[in-house]
Amino acid sequence: MKSDLKNYLAKKREEIETALNKMLPESPDRIVSAMRYSLMAGGKRLRPVLCLAAAEAVGGNAPDAMSAACALEMIHTYSLIHDDLPAMDDDEMRRGRPTCHKAFDEATAILAGDALLTFAFEILADAEAAEKDEITRQMEIIRILSKAAGYRGMVEGQMRDMESENIRRNPAELEKLHRLKTGALIEAAVLTGAVSGRGTESQTECLRQYARNIGLAFQVADDILNVEGDPEIMGKAAGTDAKRNKNTYPSLMGLEESKTFAAALIGKAVSALADFDEKADPLRAIAVYIRERRR
Amino acid sequence: MKSDLKNYLAKKREEIETALNKMLPESPDRIVSAMRYSLMAGGKRLRPVLCLAAAEAVGGNAPDAMSAACALEMIHTYSLIHDDLPAMDDDEMRRGRPTCHKAFDEATAILAGDALLTFAFEILADAEAAEKDEITRQMEIIRILSKAAGYRGMVEGQMRDMESENIRRNPAELEKLHRLKTGALIEAAVLTGAVSGRGTESQTECLRQYARNIGLAFQVADDILNVEGDPEIMGKAAGTDAKRNKNTYPSLMGLEESKTFAAALIGKAVSALADFDEKADPLRAIAVYIRERRR
Repeated sequence: MKSDLKNYLAKKREEIETALNKMLPESPDRIVSAMRYSLMAGGKRLRPVLCLAAAEAVGGNAPDAMSAACALEMIHTYSLIHDDLPAMDDDEMRRGRPTCHKAFDEATAILAGDALLTFAFEILADAEAAEKDEITRQMEIIRILSKAAGYRGMVEGQMRDMESENIRRNPAELEKLHRLKTGALIEAAVLTGAVSGRGTESQTECLRQYARNIGLAFQVADDILNVEGDPEIMGKAAGTDAKRNKNTYPSLMGLEESKTFAAALIGKAVSALADFDEKADPLRAIAVYIRERRR
Repeated sequence: MKSDLKNYLAKKREEIETALNKMLPESPDRIVSAMRYSLMAGGKRLRPVLCLAAAEAVGGNAPDAMSAACALEMIHTYSLIHDDLPAMDDDEMRRGRPTCHKAFDEATAILAGDALLTFAFEILADAEAAEKDEITRQMEIIRILSKAAGYRGMVEGQMRDMESENIRRNPAELEKLHRLKTGALIEAAVLTGAVSGRGTESQTECLRQYARNIGLAFQVADDILNVEGDPEIMGKAAGTDAKRNKNTYPSLMGLEESKTFAAALIGKAVSALADFDEKADPLRAIAVYIRERRR
């Protein structure tokens, strides 16, 4: 990873951590402890960083996108907590520590996920907005996020993933599944950033293309990591997909072909940013990082 | 139940069913089937009816409150689906039919609840709003609902309820628990109705008092029903609270004292509406119905 991007990511992550910490301060309440346990467990913060970077790419200010960025991370975290539950993927480790239901219990994990999802919308509705344009943008962000996270987006993706267990999918079906399961929220991250940064329609359309390609590339890279990755660095076990007989790109098209596919997607993502100036450099660098990351 | 109220409730319920049906049409998708299975299972529709009635009480139009009313019912339904899960209350019957996780499976029930919660906010953000005042009101509704449903409201109530199992609570603790678990959303129903109907600040304050009293009365009545109710009419088993050693008003203050308490709360609720004209008659009648209902 180039040091420019490394610094950029570190700075943005710190701003995001600070904002999340302020929105949901420590508390002795069990529900808050469980929400914070999963929310403040680190992680790549990819979605909020993408949101802030997209706001900057269209010429806006990152702080204007901070409420959307934090809402995205809360929605992402809630989805991880629920996906890890015994009735779903039944995972015991996440981000290098026991999953929420292991550290607390199942009921608390279900409620902590529910609470994070609800809190995401509270934050978006709470953002200071005095002018009509501002409120309209804020409402547009709620619309984008609720659609992306819901039953025609992320939830449907997880549903299809559950239904796919032990069923062999073709690459087109797998692509559709991932476009919903992870792609929808990554697209929403970039789009809400563009809205916060007051991007034009054509800028937003280019960013959508960028997001669709990195979203899918992210999943292909994830599948590759599950085969090749170092459990120490990833904070979770490797090889679990194969053990579960999951549909993955390496299992469908082979490892090398998957790497070529990921590279092509990243190429398309970067091309979609052709008309953007150097303010889109972080987005360009993130695209490359997505393929090369080790966790 | 007086026939006036009976007609009013029947008419409103029909309007609500029609609106819900239109928002979430039938689909072969498993996730939509599960969402609809629980959402369209009938029920009293108390929260959306309260919302529409509050809009009318302040001099507004019920249709203006329909998106808030439907969002409330979706949030209420999601909370029932998750509360019924084996890791939570482990209930097998709800609204006269198998609970969502019994009819489908646990993973589907978790996701259907998540999807209904998310869809509630999508509906609120999707409502047509051209003027600034309208968007501001819609944002206020999202704010009220997300706060009421979240970790300082309904979710915290369910958390406390889970933590209370086999712990003896005093009446003040039990009241706090219920003000969160069921009271918060009932209050939100009346408040979002008042906002939709463009109520004044003082009207809204009176309605808040009304809501707080009927919210608690509703829970007391529920506890009484669990002792005395007819399982046939209720659509679920009776006597389950005592079997689970749950903290209830009858168990803390006795059955007769609980009935007196519920009646006093209803009296306070009706008093809070003293300055309202006949347009608040449905709210007055609903207060009485809450105590006398048999399911």
